[in-house]
This record gives sequence, C-alpha cells and structure tokens, in this order.
Amino acid sequence: MIFQADNATICALSTAPGMGAIAVIRVSGPDAIGIGDAIFFRDLRTADSHKALFGVIRNDAQIIDEVLLTVFKGPNSFTGEDVIEIGCHGSVFIQNQILQLLVAEGCRYAKPGEFTFRAFFNRKMDLSQAEAVADLIAAESAGAHELALNQMRGGFSHEIAHLREQLINFASLIELELDFAEEDVEFADRSQLTKLLFEIEVVLKRLIDSFQSGNAIKNGIPVAIVGKPNAGKSTLLNVLLNEERAIVSEIPGTTRDTVEDRISIEGVSFRFIDTAGLRETEDLVEKIGVERSMEAIKKATIILYVYDVSELTGDVLSVIEAQLRADLDPSRQSLLMVGNKIDTSSPDNKHPDHLYISAKNKTDIHGLHESLINLSNIRINTEGSTVTNIRHYEALTQAYKSLQEVLTGMENAVTGDFLAIDIRKALHHLGEITGEITSDDLLGNIFGKFCIGK
Amino acid sequence: MIFQADNATICALSTAPGMGAIAVIRVSGPDAIGIGDAIFFRDLRTADSHKALFGVIRNDAQIIDEVLLTVFKGPNSFTGEDVIEIGCHGSVFIQNQILQLLVAEGCRYAKPGEFTFRAFFNRKMDLSQAEAVADLIAAESAGAHELALNQMRGGFSHEIAHLREQLINFASLIELELDFAEEDVEFADRSQLTKLLFEIEVVLKRLIDSFQSGNAIKNGIPVAIVGKPNAGKSTLLNVLLNEERAIVSEIPGTTRDTVEDRISIEGVSFRFIDTAGLRETEDLVEKIGVERSMEAIKKATIILYVYDVSELTGDVLSVIEAQLRADLDPSRQSLLMVGNKIDTSSPDNKHPDHLYISAKNKTDIHGLHESLINLSNIRINTEGSTVTNIRHYEALTQAYKSLQEVLTGMENAVTGDFLAIDIRKALHHLGEITGEITSDDLLGNIFGKFCIGK
Repeated sequence: MIFQADNATICALSTAPGMGAIAVIRVSGPDAIGIGDAIFFRDLRTADSHKALFGVIRNDAQIIDEVLLTVFKGPNSFTGEDVIEIGCHGSVFIQNQILQLLVAEGCRYAKPGEFTFRAFFNRKMDLSQAEAVADLIAAESAGAHELALNQMRGGFSHEIAHLREQLINFASLIELELDFAEEDVEFADRSQLTKLLFEIEVVLKRLIDSFQSGNAIKNGIPVAIVGKPNAGKSTLLNVLLNEERAIVSEIPGTTRDTVEDRISIEGVSFRFIDTAGLRETEDLVEKIGVERSMEAIKKATIILYVYDVSELTGDVLSVIEAQLRADLDPSRQSLLMVGNKIDTSSPDNKHPDHLYISAKNKTDIHGLHESLINLSNIRINTEGSTVTNIRHYEALTQAYKSLQEVLTGMENAVTGDFLAIDIRKALHHLGEITGEITSDDLLGNIFGKFCIGK
Repeated sequence: MIFQADNATICALSTAPGMGAIAVIRVSGPDAIGIGDAIFFRDLRTADSHKALFGVIRNDAQIIDEVLLTVFKGPNSFTGEDVIEIGCHGSVFIQNQILQLLVAEGCRYAKPGEFTFRAFFNRKMDLSQAEAVADLIAAESAGAHELALNQMRGGFSHEIAHLREQLINFASLIELELDFAEEDVEFADRSQLTKLLFEIEVVLKRLIDSFQSGNAIKNGIPVAIVGKPNAGKSTLLNVLLNEERAIVSEIPGTTRDTVEDRISIEGVSFRFIDTAGLRETEDLVEKIGVERSMEAIKKATIILYVYDVSELTGDVLSVIEAQLRADLDPSRQSLLMVGNKIDTSSPDNKHPDHLYISAKNKTDIHGLHESLINLSNIRINTEGSTVTNIRHYEALTQAYKSLQEVLTGMENAVTGDFLAIDIRKALHHLGEITGEITSDDLLGNIFGKFCIGK
C-alpha cells in the first residue's frame, strides 16, 4: 500500500541536494496554487500558466527569498495536476525554509517518485515511460541515455498498447461466443485472429531478443581483467578509468557521481568486475587471486588477459591462451589477449590477434578501446524497440508463452473458453508493461527507487 | 584582469552539482536566444519572455532531452541580458551533454560569479547587493540569511548611495569655487555642508558599530568548551551538534553541507572552536590539552567551562572560576560555568550562576541554549542596516576617517582645495561599497568566490 492516489498537495526539492546557485522546489496537487498564493507576494489565481513570475516568498511579514515562481495549470503539467515550481537561491537554509513553510501551509513532503507516480496515475505517461524517467536520470552512458529517452518518449510501449487493444477486441468477441455457446457461432474470425497473433509474436520475439543488448547497454558489459601478478593489470585498469574521468571533469560546475570501475566508450558502457584485488599493490602475494579470477571470468562477457611481453612468449603463451579459450562459453564470451609493457621489451613475434600496449605509457589504449567496442557486439538501436528492463523482459516472455499456447490451441481447434483463458493471460502480461495491470507492490517497487523530487 | 565585460554568451549549470530529479542550466548574453533557437525544437525568437516552453533539446537529429525552456528577454532578466533557462532531467550525463552542445554552438563556460557580475555590470544591482547574493547562498542560520537578504534587497547601500550623491553635489560646488578662487566666492553653503557631513557621520558610525554583531551573525559566535579530562566536554559538544542535525535531516530530499562544530539557536550561529581534541576519547592522556584550551579561550567570545559536579565543588571550584575570570577580557568575553553529570550526583550547594546539566541524558540542554543566546548579546536588526562584510567595514571606517578630516578642516576654515581632497577620499571609500569605484582586483576577489552558475 505504498502508492495510493490521495488528494494531498505534495512538495519536494527537485534539484540535486546541497548548495547551488539556484534550487527548484516543486509543488503538485489540488491546493498547489492556493498554497503558492499564501506564501508568494503576487496573485497566482489569475496568473498565466507557464509564466515565470518574479516575487518574494514570505512567512507572514518575514521575507524568506526572492524567487521566480512558475504556475503550471493542470492538466498541462508534468503530473497532470496544478503544479508550481519555485526557483529560489540555492542555499540549503533557504531550501529548508521554503519546504517547511509549504508544509506549514498544508503540503506534505513528496515520497520518492511521487511526482512521476501522479503523472502515471493521471495518464500523462504509461508505466514503462515512468520507469524510463528514473532510467534517464540514472543514465551514465550515451547508450543507456538514448534507450531511456526513447522509452520515455513512448518507445515500444505504444506498439504494445496498440497490439494489446486489438487482442482485447478478439478476446471480447471470443467471450461473446461463449455466451452463445449452444448456437455454435464464431464472432471472432479465426484467420484474422491467427494473423494478429503471429504479428504480436514477431514483435514480442524481437523485443525479447533485444534484451540482451539492452541490458548490457543499461548496466554495462561485464569485463574481467585477469593475468599473472605484475602483468600490469591494475595499471591498465587505472588508465582505462582515469581517461574517462579526465574528460568528464573538464566541464566546470559539474561533478560526476563516479561509478566505480565503469567506463563508457563511444556510448557503450563497460563494467570491470571483481577488480577489488587489482587495487591492492601487485607485489602482495595474491593468495586468493586464482579463485577470484575464476569467478570474474565466469561472470564476464569479455575477458582481458594481460601479460608481460618480456615474461610470456611462444609456446607457454599459446598454452595459456588455449586453456582460457577452453574454459569460455563462446556463445556469449570473448577473450582479448593483451601484451603489456612494450615500453620495456619488444616482442619478437607479434601474434596477429593480440593487442600490444604499454599501460604505463598509455601506448595504444585507443586500440584497446576499439577492440572492446568490437567485442561488445552492440550497436545501439535507435528505433526505440530495445528492452532494457528485466521486468519488461519477464512480462514479454510470459506473454510470449501464453501466445504460443493460444496458437497451439487454435491449431488443435480447442474450444473458445480455453482460448479465452490463454488470451487473457497474454493480455495480463502485456498490460503489466504499460501499467494497465498493476499492483501496489509493483508500483511501490518501481516508484520507491526514484529519487525524491521526481 | 579576471573580470571584464565581454560580448560572450555564457552558460553554466546553476543548480547544485550531482544527480537530481531536474537540473537548471543558464545561458546569458547577446546570442542566448539564437543559440537556444539552434538546439531547441521550437521558435524562440518569437517566444514570449518568461514563458516556459516544453520541447526537446537536440544535437542535429539526436534528441538529448525533453526540457522546459524559459526565455528571459533583456533587460528584464537577472543579468539584464537575454537569458535562457533550461530545466532538464537531472542526470549528470544530460547536464554535460547540454553544456557541451551549448559550447559547440558558441557559448563559453561561465566563470564563477559571472552571471552576478553581469547583473552588476548592467546595473541590475550594486556591488554590495551582488556580494549579498553570495552571502545569501552561503547563509546557514536565520540571522545570516536575513542580513544577506536585506543587503541583497538594497539594505544600507541605497542609503549610502543617496548620501554619497548629495556629497558629490557639494564636492562639485567646492571644486567650482576653486575655479573662481581669485574671486573668493562660496558656491557651497558651508552650514548645509556641515549638516550633511554630520548626517553622514551618524549613519557611518551606526553602520561601523553594527559590524561586530553583523560579523558574529554571519560567521558565528566563537565558543570554547574547556574543562578537565572526563568532565564530559565531548559528550556535551555532540549533544549540542546532534540536536541540530536531527532537526535538519527531518526533511527528505535535502542534505546539509555540514559545517563542522557549528549550531544555530534561534537564528544565531555559534561556532565551537578548537574542538579537534574533544573528539578524541577523553580517556587518552591530554598531553597538549592545556595549551589547546588556552588558545581556544583567547579566541572565544563565550567560554563554556564544563565540570563534573561530583568532582569539583566548593572552594576548589571557586578558585578555578576566579582564575578563569581573571584571564578574560570582560569587554568582549563571557564565562559560563556548567556543572555536568547531575545524573550521577546531585550537588549540595548549587551556585546560582552555574548551569546544571546531564550531557549524557540531555537534561536541561534547553537552558544551555538560552544562556548561549543571552550571552551572545545579539539581536538581529531587521532594518537592513547591519554590516556583515569586512570589506564594507573597512571602507566605512576609511570614509569615516576622511569625513572627520573634512569636519576638522571646516572647523579650522581651511581652503576649499584641502576640503575637496578629503571629500573626494570619503566619496571614494563610499563608492567602493556600492561599486561606483572598483578595480579588477576587487571584482576578481569578490566574484571569484562565487559558485559556478551564479
């Protein structure tokens, strides 16, 4: 029972917490304009929607701040309700003062995601679009950003909603047949139904298949860096990570909530796994190094094997590579052999498939980037039909299963009542994606993960 | 040469750095609307000023975000120039993408305080008002906030500007006399001039005297907590600090950039000094404890002497108190004797001027708050005539000095040319406050301390 529509007018700080030049506080609900009116020294009831007004926020005689206040009259607002946005000076003190004043005037502090929940509840967006808002805010790579933005702007959920609607029509016709069961009529044209079912099947199959890429784009492709002690693994990791950070910190006034051990190359996100050990000095005896590497290898999509070109050569190297390859699952894993320390020693016979770098001197790191991109085998699908959300993936898989059963049933000419059950199941799962079908648990789970103020 | 007016169109993130539900990016300058036009999918040139427009930011075909964009047409904007404000989704990725796009379209990243500098340069505010913007953002207590807000809204600078203007009239009349020196005329009515000078003198004296309170309100009243080991000093410090934090953290979505060892009671800020030692466990031998306490006592306005009521009593306690009082400067320092640990032992003879508490059980901490407020001897002056800025204080003191010299000169009937020199000096110093007189160093110093985006 976390999320319920109530009549409360809610408020929250919507910009990042902490001190800034300005901050934005959002208020939404039936009393938003009335409450704004009570604390703002200008008449809001007659104010134009979407018009920024300069004025002061005051608590009785005491002025709290000079602000820009914008009224958004429902339904033309983010939540679909009356909304006011207060752009105040960005001191934490002022933020708190204004929020406290709003509460004193009758607002309630918004729960995480409650603004977006209201947008969903008021049909400004469907559930998958609401989920995309959270993904968009959390997106850290171009790929993840693009997928979230596509999904927020409708993405595949419009397609699903459309197909679902057609399926509902057939379902109701079939259920109508059941009312006339004794007369043995068929209101639902079976050949048209089959056609629609195949159409839906193709779409679902495409979306289900897109999840592997979508998930990798959203969460990053898992990469394991392995190799003997002193091969230069931690130096390489730092080189890969630091380059990214340097680029980001060029822009003044913005900081990056650094996600440890993750980089983004050409919009694709790579996640280095089990790197805790790599951060210790490599001189330490790697007691549990072997087991740790084995775990990392199992979880990785790309395995970077780093070796010292002056140490490993010829047959020994070939044996190691063969062993590594034998342990991989070639259907989902790739191996990249990286000869390191070419600053200290030049290998006699370069292996054509190996990369040769100097992590220390940052030589040919660009080539390594290219190889990672190639091995990732990901191309961002800009058609908006990539599934990134495991909840959607599971619902699609369930819907697909039910659909298969409907098709099997039709082949076997089962009666309408059996067909109707499986169609209803498929409808249920498709409806879960767009939020036609929800539960409190589901909503609490989805919106509870949002940040406050969204 | 840090601050110069140029024709660049500048951009910056104006909300706090990091991830939030939304973020606001500000653009100001002659090309603000043109640049906005190039990246926003709606016509901004014909857009109404102050009207929030919903649309997408795009880099050619690629959509970066759905945003609310508001055009503020100069001179009716914060800077006095054309301004656009972009309210985007609050991911760091999106913030960076939009800023990079703005720069690609011809913007320059704003320097710290550059928006406010432009507001000053375009006469939307005087220099002391601009300084108050930074103070307002940094204000952490009700007192500091109120003083900054008053100053930003004009405060005493309008008063000074008005007096200065009148003084300029006299100065020009006196300088005119010099041109007619041989004719021995007096354009400037000496009795009226004297009246004005006395008027200014009164104002300056009042402002100069207000600085001690103003500075304490802005920076906090320094309090030293001293006492023997195990008297409960660190427990008391934590009780005082934690209460404050608990209040602040009640509001979801806001965090406090905690200033270590500072609390605000009834809007007055108290700063605990040299408390590093108090954070160590008190069981440790306090080797340098004594010297540290002596330093703290020298710097403090209020000295809190904490003792264990079961340990210090009667004559010994009286001797300690007498010693402490002998070391104080009673013109600026107060002593507060605090008997602690009344949970373990009840003192037989309570000293009427001592406070009795249990830091452990938080007994009578409210009484301690009251005593601190009483000893602070600060009442917030809401007339806006409190000086909080040491630069203003120094300029006022200099102006006052020059004014005294003018008055002395007039008493001694010195010639107009000598009067003119001292009047010009006074005008110079008064002009420094409001920014009629500035230098690059001064501006760089003032605006360089601002945060980015303001």
